[in-house]
Amino acid sequence: MNRMTTTVAVAGASGYAGGEILRLLLGHPRLRSGELEIGALTAGGNAGTTLAEHQPHLLPLADRVLQETTPEALAGHDVVFLGLPHGSSGPMADALSPSTLVIDCGADFRLEDPADWERWYGSDHAGHWPYGLPELPGNREVLTGATRIAVPGCYPTVSILSLLPAVASGLVEPHVTVVAVSGASGAGRAPKANLLAAEVIGSARAYGIGGAHRHTPEIGQALSRVAEVPVAVSFTPVLVPMARGILATCTARTTASAAEARAVYEKAYDDEPFIHLLPDGALPTTGAVVGSNAVQLSVTVDEQAGTFVAVGAIDNLTKGTGGAAVQSMNLAVGFDEVEGLSTVGVAP
Amino acid sequence: MNRMTTTVAVAGASGYAGGEILRLLLGHPRLRSGELEIGALTAGGNAGTTLAEHQPHLLPLADRVLQETTPEALAGHDVVFLGLPHGSSGPMADALSPSTLVIDCGADFRLEDPADWERWYGSDHAGHWPYGLPELPGNREVLTGATRIAVPGCYPTVSILSLLPAVASGLVEPHVTVVAVSGASGAGRAPKANLLAAEVIGSARAYGIGGAHRHTPEIGQALSRVAEVPVAVSFTPVLVPMARGILATCTARTTASAAEARAVYEKAYDDEPFIHLLPDGALPTTGAVVGSNAVQLSVTVDEQAGTFVAVGAIDNLTKGTGGAAVQSMNLAVGFDEVEGLSTVGVAP
Amino acid sequence: MNRMTTTVAVAGASGYAGGEILRLLLGHPRLRSGELEIGALTAGGNAGTTLAEHQPHLLPLADRVLQETTPEALAGHDVVFLGLPHGSSGPMADALSPSTLVIDCGADFRLEDPADWERWYGSDHAGHWPYGLPELPGNREVLTGATRIAVPGCYPTVSILSLLPAVASGLVEPHVTVVAVSGASGAGRAPKANLLAAEVIGSARAYGIGGAHRHTPEIGQALSRVAEVPVAVSFTPVLVPMARGILATCTARTTASAAEARAVYEKAYDDEPFIHLLPDGALPTTGAVVGSNAVQLSVTVDEQAGTFVAVGAIDNLTKGTGGAAVQSMNLAVGFDEVEGLSTVGVAP
Amino acid sequence: MNRMTTTVAVAGASGYAGGEILRLLLGHPRLRSGELEIGALTAGGNAGTTLAEHQPHLLPLADRVLQETTPEALAGHDVVFLGLPHGSSGPMADALSPSTLVIDCGADFRLEDPADWERWYGSDHAGHWPYGLPELPGNREVLTGATRIAVPGCYPTVSILSLLPAVASGLVEPHVTVVAVSGASGAGRAPKANLLAAEVIGSARAYGIGGAHRHTPEIGQALSRVAEVPVAVSFTPVLVPMARGILATCTARTTASAAEARAVYEKAYDDEPFIHLLPDGALPTTGAVVGSNAVQLSVTVDEQAGTFVAVGAIDNLTKGTGGAAVQSMNLAVGFDEVEGLSTVGVAP
Repeated sequence: MNRMTTTVAVAGASGYAGGEILRLLLGHPRLRSGELEIGALTAGGNAGTTLAEHQPHLLPLADRVLQETTPEALAGHDVVFLGLPHGSSGPMADALSPSTLVIDCGADFRLEDPADWERWYGSDHAGHWPYGLPELPGNREVLTGATRIAVPGCYPTVSILSLLPAVASGLVEPHVTVVAVSGASGAGRAPKANLLAAEVIGSARAYGIGGAHRHTPEIGQALSRVAEVPVAVSFTPVLVPMARGILATCTARTTASAAEARAVYEKAYDDEPFIHLLPDGALPTTGAVVGSNAVQLSVTVDEQAGTFVAVGAIDNLTKGTGGAAVQSMNLAVGFDEVEGLSTVGVAP
Repeated sequence: MNRMTTTVAVAGASGYAGGEILRLLLGHPRLRSGELEIGALTAGGNAGTTLAEHQPHLLPLADRVLQETTPEALAGHDVVFLGLPHGSSGPMADALSPSTLVIDCGADFRLEDPADWERWYGSDHAGHWPYGLPELPGNREVLTGATRIAVPGCYPTVSILSLLPAVASGLVEPHVTVVAVSGASGAGRAPKANLLAAEVIGSARAYGIGGAHRHTPEIGQALSRVAEVPVAVSFTPVLVPMARGILATCTARTTASAAEARAVYEKAYDDEPFIHLLPDGALPTTGAVVGSNAVQLSVTVDEQAGTFVAVGAIDNLTKGTGGAAVQSMNLAVGFDEVEGLSTVGVAP
Repeated sequence: MNRMTTTVAVAGASGYAGGEILRLLLGHPRLRSGELEIGALTAGGNAGTTLAEHQPHLLPLADRVLQETTPEALAGHDVVFLGLPHGSSGPMADALSPSTLVIDCGADFRLEDPADWERWYGSDHAGHWPYGLPELPGNREVLTGATRIAVPGCYPTVSILSLLPAVASGLVEPHVTVVAVSGASGAGRAPKANLLAAEVIGSARAYGIGGAHRHTPEIGQALSRVAEVPVAVSFTPVLVPMARGILATCTARTTASAAEARAVYEKAYDDEPFIHLLPDGALPTTGAVVGSNAVQLSVTVDEQAGTFVAVGAIDNLTKGTGGAAVQSMNLAVGFDEVEGLSTVGVAP
Repeated sequence: MNRMTTTVAVAGASGYAGGEILRLLLGHPRLRSGELEIGALTAGGNAGTTLAEHQPHLLPLADRVLQETTPEALAGHDVVFLGLPHGSSGPMADALSPSTLVIDCGADFRLEDPADWERWYGSDHAGHWPYGLPELPGNREVLTGATRIAVPGCYPTVSILSLLPAVASGLVEPHVTVVAVSGASGAGRAPKANLLAAEVIGSARAYGIGGAHRHTPEIGQALSRVAEVPVAVSFTPVLVPMARGILATCTARTTASAAEARAVYEKAYDDEPFIHLLPDGALPTTGAVVGSNAVQLSVTVDEQAGTFVAVGAIDNLTKGTGGAAVQSMNLAVGFDEVEGLSTVGVAP
């Protein structure tokens, strides 16, 4: 390995997280300049097949044969992205060198409180790693030079970023409601009857109501920290017939005015490269962020109902997973944070 | 006209509301028995064309030529359904005999408070008519024998029915949040660039946030009446890529338990023919109610967040418009309330 | 069992074919009159669960518990519908009384030529049964009183009916090309990664090109019989992002004019209750036949290219499966052929 | 203007073609290096509004105000892309300097034969320009240094490239059938009732059958030239519920074997940067080319039916419009042909 070249391995390359990371790496300027190199691609049951069978959109890597996901296959790379089932990342990370940058797209290392982990996942807590959401206050410093990073869940990413300034500034009561619609890729690629196209097309359905969804404590953890008080979170995910995208409608009671709310958000996000507060009257669409790392955001206050409303849109696979992973890598290894990540979506 | 035969006219027969009413009338058992007869079909700009050009799914009426929507064309029928632009129903109803049953699918006669009307619609208030939601307490009596009926808006129908027992019983605080995803047919058939298929497919978007949507006061009106206190309503509609269906996620703070909430709903809806409270663990999908007049409903309490959650699904064109119109007609003219209306959806 | 009552069992009630048959039976007038009764509902792996878990749109049967699919569970019914995997229908039919009407939605008994069966399915030929396409010349007589019926495949139904008059009359060369787009329900309900919503939404793909699809010989068999010469069939199925519907574009070389072609079709289909030849200039859409048993059809000739073009639309689950099954049952047991079947679709 | 900088104007920047060109230019490496600069953005009825109102996915240009499309606004740029209604490009091009590179995404200059133009478009023929399909034999030489380029239609692009080697080599009879499914963006952004989301979602429909579609002569023109005999073309476009993508199934009679067909295509396309012949058994999907300039292609022969089958997939807005425009610009101004164009799609 050339000391100028950062080598990258992707575990779970036949899944959606792995595919998105590879898509972004193929457009990364450091790849073209030779400073970044795509090494081992691994999979579980799909080991031995070519990448083209699973990711036909990644033509430059079409003939790559997937290796089995083992510590040996992943060893010797500077960066290892993990897109594995929940519970698999801990043992794998333990088997990799502490100096390897390991970026986990799974849930294993997101929650700080072991009780939260056990309540929602029902197994032993593996620990917690720096949280790959650079936009959290003070978090860029934590991620710079980190060797272990937990990529946030897709719903938490957009929910936290949509509510963060309001909660942190005390603009709203610490009791928030998030109803987020998502495309089907968020459920992953394992075949299940209720995710078949015929079931999803033409239908919307909530799932995990009443706090049942595992992303609930992750939202509460981040918001409570910035609020410095416990924030109660009611979270309802809704599956709608699209492949990509999350639109989160976030509400909380407030006595503030729309103008006050807007001022708080402008101040909070003015310098953020990926967060785009839309002008008054414009509203975000998930279509506008397909394939992009942008968060499009609108805020207002329903003064009659005394309710603050923030609506945020992301691509669950980009800013919600693979983009956050690459953004975190950029920070950790010292690249410019925005390299290889675009705020331009593929629309319509 | 045979005194045994009820004749029906549909104004706006080339639109979605008119089409759905005709679809349901074609399956109505009184049509087959000759007790119901489809008379004049009228339209605005589409007058002079055949119904097949606009409603190719209604083969038995394919060759019917649309007349212009005038009082003369509609006169002489026992029942007139109006599927007209907002503001048109008042003058048309004035020109029809007081003994004609006029069922309006527009908004003109839904709101009781002229101030609400003026605030959201910006014109003079036409008045208010019996509200075509038979499931409201005491409302079947009002609708029986009525000669003027205002069909509820599609979002209010599912929002009110999802929240009614909780609000009426005091189970929740009188401050509710509704986030409802809807298919594109809810926006009607007038061509607009932002409703083009290429814009809607692959994208979700909120519209009218912060209380801007005109269905907000209609939800508040019904809930406040049953609660006997003013109910604050935060309502956000979200357009998603499907043709039909609304899924409303309704939340409010509560100290009740999930079991208490369920008991309240079971009691309230046990005898309702079209409201189906799902068993614990099951969640409604809009796919399951396509073409059906059913409301599928789940309720629970997120005890950690102190939040009551109700999720309701309807077909916006059936129970949300045309089905409610036919259900109201059945009551008004003395047919069995459920005739011609099914709880069986077309799925997948 | 009352001798006035026809009892019906459905094997494979948790699948799409079974669900559609049940949907249609629930709207059948003989059910309401008590002359038809829904008996055993059976399944394979889903035995022991309620129907609501699989068919939440069939509310009147929500609490029915699925029995295991065995000859014992199906015995004692007048009519047994089979919606089973290929290869399972033969043994099951053998175990049922010869006087029971068995209507098979699978492929096992569709092909007459054992060589065709073996080439496309790779197993022993089970035999062939009367073919449940009443619109084939002389076929109503065959189906009336039959006790074994093979429901046609969905692609063959629309392909054969779109081409039948042209081929039978010698209007075109006996070499036809069919490119048919289909919704995802045609692939059934077994979970497969390439049928996941995220894979299908936003994408179109051909599958089984070059004659690989098993419906190819079924199309050729019917067309060759009516043509009285072998008809070569090039068939390409294309999966598109919708739940229901097939649109088949069928072409063949011709020297006839558009007017001649139209005259042939008008004559052939004028009396058919479910085949609707659209007026010149109108074109079929699958949306207009959702949930309906209609075939909407357009024909023309591209005189510059010397090519006959027929485009036909059906709902693959209704006329393409469950509707054909019920239409066949009606004929076999002596009901009116069209009972319980509508030409009205659920659109938009 | 710096002599190192190529300035670009886009007329029709609020439409789909203009938006896609801008999306690609924003990712073009010469933009980042300062050698390319986005100048005037113009529109018709949308002049005076910001780009964000129409192209919310193009965040870096969000605040750009659209000028009116006039020769004055477009003058002084090195490259002018025209995304205008048919019939508008001729006068506009006449008003621009002959040394300006004008790349027209409309149909005006695609057809060589005035009789073809008049038959399909009904107006006077404006002339014909170099055809922006570099993959045609000898065409790269024509495009290099050209100052007027007509971008091919989206259907012709994929149809011609799918059939070119077969037709040029005499592998098939000169009588081809193309059935191509397309997403809704191909129909443009002008609001029409039959392109509303509610009409398109859940439905497939053919339009323009029997040679009525205006892309028919364009396919015939290119194929006839390479075949050196007239090629009869039967073309049927089918609208399906997706935003982007065309999948063309192309058939013709042949006596060749599948292996012979494959060999012809491998030889023809081995060096093409954007045409990817899939390995045997793999089939193209439009999902895999979303946002990419790739053509994914499969070929085979149905030996039983004596029919050659080629299936090609493109993104109608990228390789089918904006990508072809940028690829042509690259050739014309002397950049590397592939700059700013990717073979990586955004999937799923």
